[in-house]
Amino acid sequence: MKIAILPGDGIGPEIMNQAVKVMNALGEQFETETVPVGGAAYAAHGHPLPESTLKVAKEADAILFGAVGDWKYDTLERSLRPEQAILGLRKHLSLFANFRPAILYPELAGASSLKPEIVSGLDIMIVRELTGDIYFGQPRGVRECPDGAFKGEREGFDTMRYAEPEIRRIAHVAFQAAQKRTKRLTSVDKANVLETFQFWRDIVTDVHKEYPDVELDHMYVDNAAMQLVRAPKKFDVVVTGNMFGDILSDAAAMLTGSIGMLPSASLNAKNQGLYEPSHGSAPDIAGKDMANPLAQILSLAMMLRYSLNKPEQADRVEAAVKAVLQQGLRTPDIYEAGTTKVGTTQMGDAVLKALK
Amino acid sequence: MKIAILPGDGIGPEIMNQAVKVMNALGEQFETETVPVGGAAYAAHGHPLPESTLKVAKEADAILFGAVGDWKYDTLERSLRPEQAILGLRKHLSLFANFRPAILYPELAGASSLKPEIVSGLDIMIVRELTGDIYFGQPRGVRECPDGAFKGEREGFDTMRYAEPEIRRIAHVAFQAAQKRTKRLTSVDKANVLETFQFWRDIVTDVHKEYPDVELDHMYVDNAAMQLVRAPKKFDVVVTGNMFGDILSDAAAMLTGSIGMLPSASLNAKNQGLYEPSHGSAPDIAGKDMANPLAQILSLAMMLRYSLNKPEQADRVEAAVKAVLQQGLRTPDIYEAGTTKVGTTQMGDAVLKALK
Ligand SMILES: CC(C)[C@H](C(=O)O)[C@@H](O)C(=O)O
Ligand SMILES: CC(C)[C@H](C(=O)O)[C@@H](O)C(=O)O
Repeated sequence: MKIAILPGDGIGPEIMNQAVKVMNALGEQFETETVPVGGAAYAAHGHPLPESTLKVAKEADAILFGAVGDWKYDTLERSLRPEQAILGLRKHLSLFANFRPAILYPELAGASSLKPEIVSGLDIMIVRELTGDIYFGQPRGVRECPDGAFKGEREGFDTMRYAEPEIRRIAHVAFQAAQKRTKRLTSVDKANVLETFQFWRDIVTDVHKEYPDVELDHMYVDNAAMQLVRAPKKFDVVVTGNMFGDILSDAAAMLTGSIGMLPSASLNAKNQGLYEPSHGSAPDIAGKDMANPLAQILSLAMMLRYSLNKPEQADRVEAAVKAVLQQGLRTPDIYEAGTTKVGTTQMGDAVLKALK
Repeated sequence: MKIAILPGDGIGPEIMNQAVKVMNALGEQFETETVPVGGAAYAAHGHPLPESTLKVAKEADAILFGAVGDWKYDTLERSLRPEQAILGLRKHLSLFANFRPAILYPELAGASSLKPEIVSGLDIMIVRELTGDIYFGQPRGVRECPDGAFKGEREGFDTMRYAEPEIRRIAHVAFQAAQKRTKRLTSVDKANVLETFQFWRDIVTDVHKEYPDVELDHMYVDNAAMQLVRAPKKFDVVVTGNMFGDILSDAAAMLTGSIGMLPSASLNAKNQGLYEPSHGSAPDIAGKDMANPLAQILSLAMMLRYSLNKPEQADRVEAAVKAVLQQGLRTPDIYEAGTTKVGTTQMGDAVLKALK
């Protein structure tokens, strides 16, 4: 099995080192190839997603991705900025189904900015559509306003769109995820304002007929943002579009207070997947042996489970992560009094040890 | 001065009664006219925003608006549903500047789902653009997909757009609001993905030149959603587009735990304004004398301040609301042990008494 390793920028390489260490200790035969992405790829090849990197990613069964972005690339024109690499990978590999768990580890309940009774035991799975919506819709750009009150003025514009098969396939994925959990699915839209999301609601309702065992409800995105703050445990599986999913999955992750713990998976129809931490590249702490490698290591576990069909190995990795938390080991982002502060490498070593 | 009173549906009429009672006690000469809107207008005239209601609203200096929506109208076609009234009023009156404060009253700190140290003293002003963006952009609808991988399939689509003058005018409003507060403005966009919001960022940056005393920073919407959960007190004035503002202003309101306390103002270039509670029509508790009238009463205060140029009267109303909170009076939505539970009417009466 082929795995593409894309460490990226900022803390990406150092947390990736820990995940690779863990992967190598599993006793499996993986063929890996490490290639640059994001700012690192721009520096090496003049593009955040060079052909050479894309080729390795396409030919792999799974991609373990670190993080991209650094202030030094902020002044580049948009098409060359690091985050274009992640958009390009999603699009070129048709990674339409993004799974973003928001789980609060009981050991880390204190890290949340919410009251313990509101978040303890939180376990939400956000299923975000990742290759459609206003992220990729054409036409888009800056033009002379063609009509209306501002005719002739400059305007920025984008196109939101979802085709029926795009909605159907993500709905199927979400209903199936719900079947494996508590059989409750919330579809988030803005059907009261947007044609795209009235259409979304209609199609999701239609797909529901094939999953009579799942309880479906529809919620407007503004209300969903409120309910996430007010009573997040009422959610189980949430399915939504690319733009709303971007906002809600980050809000949900932050409810836990430990985004450094949260992995994500982005899959295509062939179960080829890209696995990355939910957090960013944190250039401010890069190279300081301070970053939390656990989201990257848990991304490895998701990869084992979803793309490589090694659920026992995934369980092993996840159990090792739980063990180090129980041992009281904490990187600075999740440290609190009474626990033991460790660096990136020590944390990786501890997971490795717990694995054996 | 002419005031249009639009009570609407659900709890709208009963909270409006309390606000009108307070208004009438101010000793001012206001000419008022009460007209139906939303479901109530549909029931009376077959349309949520009949010509007769729109005319009264247009001719008024200010509109005091309750809330719209009720389950019984959920099956109507979209153009007849209650919330179309609010979209229609915004558009027809060019109410482009929406002010949504998220304030945590010290007496109600316990109501928040966030830890007290995260939210105590919270005081954010969200300035949301209200007449542009994907809410009103054309073209929109359901069509046959014209190109790409899903060519020929049905698709739902909408157009996001912002013309330069639309961004300039809301930016001016927001910078001026920041000048009156702590001189910090956060502009929220998604410039890394959307052309509309790269354009937004460029224009806001340009307008900033006229307000060198204000500190401006730009934040992506997904990060803003996270920071609202993690460290909301870092925000002061936030400016954003219609769609992002819908989501973030509701999330921010919910941080306080007392959305029943939060008013809003929607203004046009002539300072004509629509004033409404941030909460909805709550049909489940309508007619039960349980609703919190304070957001409606505080909307009256905002009206006095922004459209009627009566800041001392606004101060009086706001002081009266603070006084009833200090007296320990609470409607069920904000009740906690050790306080006195009161109904809608009693709460209105208490504000009236505190006014004198
Ligand atoms: C970096 C950015 C383009 C990306 C997105 O908006 O999808 C990120 O926020 C994410 O959620 O993975
Ligand atoms: C009712 C709905 C159309 C409206 C909106 O989306 O603007 C509401 O959510 C609001 O924020 O006032």
